[in-house]
Amino acid sequence: MRPVRITRGFTSHPAGSVLIEFGQTRVMCTASVENSVPGWRRGSGLGWVTAEYAMLPAATHTRSTRESVRGKIGGRTHEISRLIGRSLRACIDLAAIGENTIALDCDVLQADGGTRTAAITGAYVALVDAVSYLRAEGKLADPQPISCAISAVSVGVVDGRVRLDLPYEEDSRAEVDMNVVATDAGTLVEVQGTGEGATFPRATLDKLLDMATVGTDTLFEAQREALALPYPGTPPEA
Amino acid sequence: MRPVRITRGFTSHPAGSVLIEFGQTRVMCTASVENSVPGWRRGSGLGWVTAEYAMLPAATHTRSTRESVRGKIGGRTHEISRLIGRSLRACIDLAAIGENTIALDCDVLQADGGTRTAAITGAYVALVDAVSYLRAEGKLADPQPISCAISAVSVGVVDGRVRLDLPYEEDSRAEVDMNVVATDAGTLVEVQGTGEGATFPRATLDKLLDMATVGTDTLFEAQREALALPYPGTPPEA
Amino acid sequence: MRPVRITRGFTSHPAGSVLIEFGQTRVMCTASVENSVPGWRRGSGLGWVTAEYAMLPAATHTRSTRESVRGKIGGRTHEISRLIGRSLRACIDLAAIGENTIALDCDVLQADGGTRTAAITGAYVALVDAVSYLRAEGKLADPQPISCAISAVSVGVVDGRVRLDLPYEEDSRAEVDMNVVATDAGTLVEVQGTGEGATFPRATLDKLLDMATVGTDTLFEAQREALALPYPGTPPEA
Amino acid sequence: MRPVRITRGFTSHPAGSVLIEFGQTRVMCTASVENSVPGWRRGSGLGWVTAEYAMLPAATHTRSTRESVRGKIGGRTHEISRLIGRSLRACIDLAAIGENTIALDCDVLQADGGTRTAAITGAYVALVDAVSYLRAEGKLADPQPISCAISAVSVGVVDGRVRLDLPYEEDSRAEVDMNVVATDAGTLVEVQGTGEGATFPRATLDKLLDMATVGTDTLFEAQREALALPYPGTPPEA
Amino acid sequence: MRPVRITRGFTSHPAGSVLIEFGQTRVMCTASVENSVPGWRRGSGLGWVTAEYAMLPAATHTRSTRESVRGKIGGRTHEISRLIGRSLRACIDLAAIGENTIALDCDVLQADGGTRTAAITGAYVALVDAVSYLRAEGKLADPQPISCAISAVSVGVVDGRVRLDLPYEEDSRAEVDMNVVATDAGTLVEVQGTGEGATFPRATLDKLLDMATVGTDTLFEAQREALALPYPGTPPEA
Amino acid sequence: MRPVRITRGFTSHPAGSVLIEFGQTRVMCTASVENSVPGWRRGSGLGWVTAEYAMLPAATHTRSTRESVRGKIGGRTHEISRLIGRSLRACIDLAAIGENTIALDCDVLQADGGTRTAAITGAYVALVDAVSYLRAEGKLADPQPISCAISAVSVGVVDGRVRLDLPYEEDSRAEVDMNVVATDAGTLVEVQGTGEGATFPRATLDKLLDMATVGTDTLFEAQREALALPYPGTPPEA
Repeated sequence: MRPVRITRGFTSHPAGSVLIEFGQTRVMCTASVENSVPGWRRGSGLGWVTAEYAMLPAATHTRSTRESVRGKIGGRTHEISRLIGRSLRACIDLAAIGENTIALDCDVLQADGGTRTAAITGAYVALVDAVSYLRAEGKLADPQPISCAISAVSVGVVDGRVRLDLPYEEDSRAEVDMNVVATDAGTLVEVQGTGEGATFPRATLDKLLDMATVGTDTLFEAQREALALPYPGTPPEA
Repeated sequence: MRPVRITRGFTSHPAGSVLIEFGQTRVMCTASVENSVPGWRRGSGLGWVTAEYAMLPAATHTRSTRESVRGKIGGRTHEISRLIGRSLRACIDLAAIGENTIALDCDVLQADGGTRTAAITGAYVALVDAVSYLRAEGKLADPQPISCAISAVSVGVVDGRVRLDLPYEEDSRAEVDMNVVATDAGTLVEVQGTGEGATFPRATLDKLLDMATVGTDTLFEAQREALALPYPGTPPEA
Repeated sequence: MRPVRITRGFTSHPAGSVLIEFGQTRVMCTASVENSVPGWRRGSGLGWVTAEYAMLPAATHTRSTRESVRGKIGGRTHEISRLIGRSLRACIDLAAIGENTIALDCDVLQADGGTRTAAITGAYVALVDAVSYLRAEGKLADPQPISCAISAVSVGVVDGRVRLDLPYEEDSRAEVDMNVVATDAGTLVEVQGTGEGATFPRATLDKLLDMATVGTDTLFEAQREALALPYPGTPPEA
Repeated sequence: MRPVRITRGFTSHPAGSVLIEFGQTRVMCTASVENSVPGWRRGSGLGWVTAEYAMLPAATHTRSTRESVRGKIGGRTHEISRLIGRSLRACIDLAAIGENTIALDCDVLQADGGTRTAAITGAYVALVDAVSYLRAEGKLADPQPISCAISAVSVGVVDGRVRLDLPYEEDSRAEVDMNVVATDAGTLVEVQGTGEGATFPRATLDKLLDMATVGTDTLFEAQREALALPYPGTPPEA
Repeated sequence: MRPVRITRGFTSHPAGSVLIEFGQTRVMCTASVENSVPGWRRGSGLGWVTAEYAMLPAATHTRSTRESVRGKIGGRTHEISRLIGRSLRACIDLAAIGENTIALDCDVLQADGGTRTAAITGAYVALVDAVSYLRAEGKLADPQPISCAISAVSVGVVDGRVRLDLPYEEDSRAEVDMNVVATDAGTLVEVQGTGEGATFPRATLDKLLDMATVGTDTLFEAQREALALPYPGTPPEA
Repeated sequence: MRPVRITRGFTSHPAGSVLIEFGQTRVMCTASVENSVPGWRRGSGLGWVTAEYAMLPAATHTRSTRESVRGKIGGRTHEISRLIGRSLRACIDLAAIGENTIALDCDVLQADGGTRTAAITGAYVALVDAVSYLRAEGKLADPQPISCAISAVSVGVVDGRVRLDLPYEEDSRAEVDMNVVATDAGTLVEVQGTGEGATFPRATLDKLLDMATVGTDTLFEAQREALALPYPGTPPEA
């Protein structure tokens, strides 16, 4: 596992703002609160948590074109945004936050493999800060809407060996690649294992899951340490 | 497992054309051959297999808006198209088909749960027919480019019980939902397990995988039976 | 005239669902009922009938790109969708169906010339079934909102001779090409005659119209036969 | 028939530039020459004639939104652009103009019914000037590539009576509406008759065609008079 | 300064319609009144003035592609539209016109440099006519909502010399290019000076501003003369 | 003037990567080198410098929608991107860098007024580092392609007083707002002064320019200090 760093209060405007680093991978995760929900959810009494993932153009080794300039979101971006939203909704009671939306934005400043798992892990911390903000504003129906912590890690088979938290150089030549989203209650939220151009026996899947647990345990510890600190700077006008 | 029906030669123009039915779910899967590859692959000597998934507007209980009219592909469509392409590329030697592209189109005529798994299972049969077409045209570098069969099935936990091949009514209230893509060599290609709003223990994951194997074995049998028949009608001007 | 086949109840979800075949041309025509009208029509007491036409990518001899992937509807698609909607609105009393919308979707599964005329002819049958559905639901102000049957056929001049219901091979080299939409009351709804790269005398126009009448009469007969049968399977939860 | 005015050399940059007026309807028709053809036509030795139609936002009684701002071309615009292109290609030998493209732009400055027929009639005059420009540049394989004149007029049934060249007030309440594109050799290029919400007997079609001939004859005379004048101002740097 | 011509009542539908010519540059400027304001302004009691600028495809020496066909507005178009809107809002009391919108459309029929400054100068005249229309309709809270006249001119340094109102041939090789929007009260609304590929000392800026004042004074005179005439033709149904 | 901080080597992949802070405004400016030029410039022997500006969604007080999700670039973004590109091209000899492109990306992490001026000032530093990278790669025709430094500052009139480097709170209620781009040779590159809803006398323009010079001098000093340090970390594989 590469060194993990979680910086809360990275920027000042959103209710939660986290810079998370998995080695050279750096993702800015923010959680913005809006006092309304999308149209299809109005009047339900339920809140909503949504997520958007994006890469800055110079985050990758070779500059990539902006999706705003191309005029559409690519398939990979869509897929990861949906994964982040689904993962974080697994830990929160949407009735408890009332008709408020928490928008999670995960922008990759520098990419070196594992950007989606770093995004999920950092977004959890930003989400906790946004919930604290809603609590301070007196907007929570239940003071503890979050039932567990969420973190994610990538595992893979590279050169025939199972590896944890793959940097880009390994990820790009992995035979099997898996992303695991887990809770600190020991359960799973999402498992996505893929063998592009190869296939893998179930025994490998088992080994990958064992290895992933080591990774997510490390990440839960890093999240706890970061959240144990007082909120840096003034929280947004709560 | 719902009754499975596979009809080859469903339409006449593409090199492979399959109607696959999982109960009330019906997907038309075609495999079109183009004697070229995308720009980024030209000169490599390698072929390409790509896939696109779509729902006809009246395929669902309530009519859905066309993505062509909205002017963009939705996230779910993107995600499934990518999954189908990745899954089918796992069984084919792209060097053996030379610089040709096989485009798999999976259009859902009627949706009742499991459309993506039906699409993968049907696309495999269409792919085999397209490869036969390339063989008849003398375009194959290696006469047997396909190394194994591919099929996919959905499994889930509904009302606390593990279920196979979920129809829409069950799928929409499943606590855990998993799609498994497997080979008839007993290996896995892709595992995507999700607990939207819930999480699940690893023991459940194991039970779901066991159940999925039952499903994919049934599907491999159905594929074999369909492919054992002579090609219906005249094959496209080979 | 090529053999015509009309299959009602082709799929189960929409209120009307028809597979129509003109020889090798096959179009799936569905009629979906929505209990509302577009914004600009709200409060008028009038219903609406709209249509969308599309080609599946593998419907043509050479695979065509999806319009959803290109991000826009092409001119030809736009033109045909508008023609179908206009044609079917000519036979229905929009006041009689109340503020309900009937959305006609005509998706070409296999194209061999005459797809737009097959679409109109099949959409009429789907429309009749959708009106029966509205009647069963007690949503009609007047029990007989349909005043006449609508069918359409293509005629053209090929190698100097007038031909009816042109397959692709003839259509692509026709000197004059005309689509005629008619009612079974002997009147015309739409006449579109074109000489791409050539022009034609009025005498030819007259001969083409005579020939078209032969074709639409055959189609009215086929529609009547199809509609004389009881509705196949259970009608959608009326 | 409303008064017709044709002004050549309306602007200076394009090879042909015509302002055409049918009563209060005013359309600017330009013909721009490009010394190349679209990719799919390269190497064929043939030229190309293409057309684009558009409405200025304030051309209509109530301001309409720009299609550039909406980000897409509407169905009506598409349809008319295609009609203009097809109509003008009927009078020109594309081999004779070599691998050059003539782009016809028809922009409606003020709309009062009949904009598409005015556009076709004016575009013919601009096309003739663009061909003269190509001749002066020595780019023609055959000095007379234009085989006949093209004009177009609308006819319709209003309050039960057949009317020629309908202004907006009549057009908007016409029971039958027809656009006829004809040649000065007495043949037809395109006939589009529509009964929106009504149908019409073939006898009406015949009367409409008779009436249209009166209109197009008037227009051929106006075109001849306009083209008999010397080119106003300096022709573009031939 | 090139000869300036201002023609009011150029078209009949919009409340104000002006053709303005700066030498060979010709821009049609219309002002359309809508009895509503954009959503974000509703209930404020304030009106709105907005502007859109566009080039017809054949306005330039070489035909340019339509932005509607490309499916998006280019940066230059966006920039100029915003400039025109901002400039004209500087002279009008938005409270005095009530919750009405005046939409200014500036369409360049022929471009020969200075199209944005001609557009602003002409749009002012169209705006005055639209305000007169609102006054005649009894829609003004204050009968004189316009506090001053607005005009604009380009100045630049060409071959080392300061020049006023640059035609295209000079503009394209100017070392410094500046657009100045001014009021007839002697104040400035907008100053945009640019040295593409070159830089300029502040002394040059001063000389350019002096020169611009000469130009805008000429334009205020031309506006006054045009507005002193009675409204040509019938004003739109006030 | 708010405190200015310039951090070079903020990320590792691009040839230049700078974090610039003007008080609470933080912009990440990267300079990516591509060994080619856009199509229209190929074969000219000249390089190109281009720029794109964007706001992260949570950079502002209230979260803004992503332009990639909306599917188009807004007018403001377009305008600022063009301004940055123009400004930086003023200081570099494009012949000296050969047929290479330097793409400047300015992404606002946190916005508190003056984002475009911070972007220009930071982009200059990233550009210098990218030029050093090209020099180390032996790609420069002339070893010193940069002729002067470029910086930019905003000035405005707030509550009747001239202010330098306006934070958002002042900027949003400024009567006059001006952005000045200058060189350290004492010349101007771009001057954009705007009075939204107000106008201003020329004397104010003069005072604003005086004040701007104070600001840009401070910025040139900050740039020099930042560039005097050795490049932090390993430069990208030069």
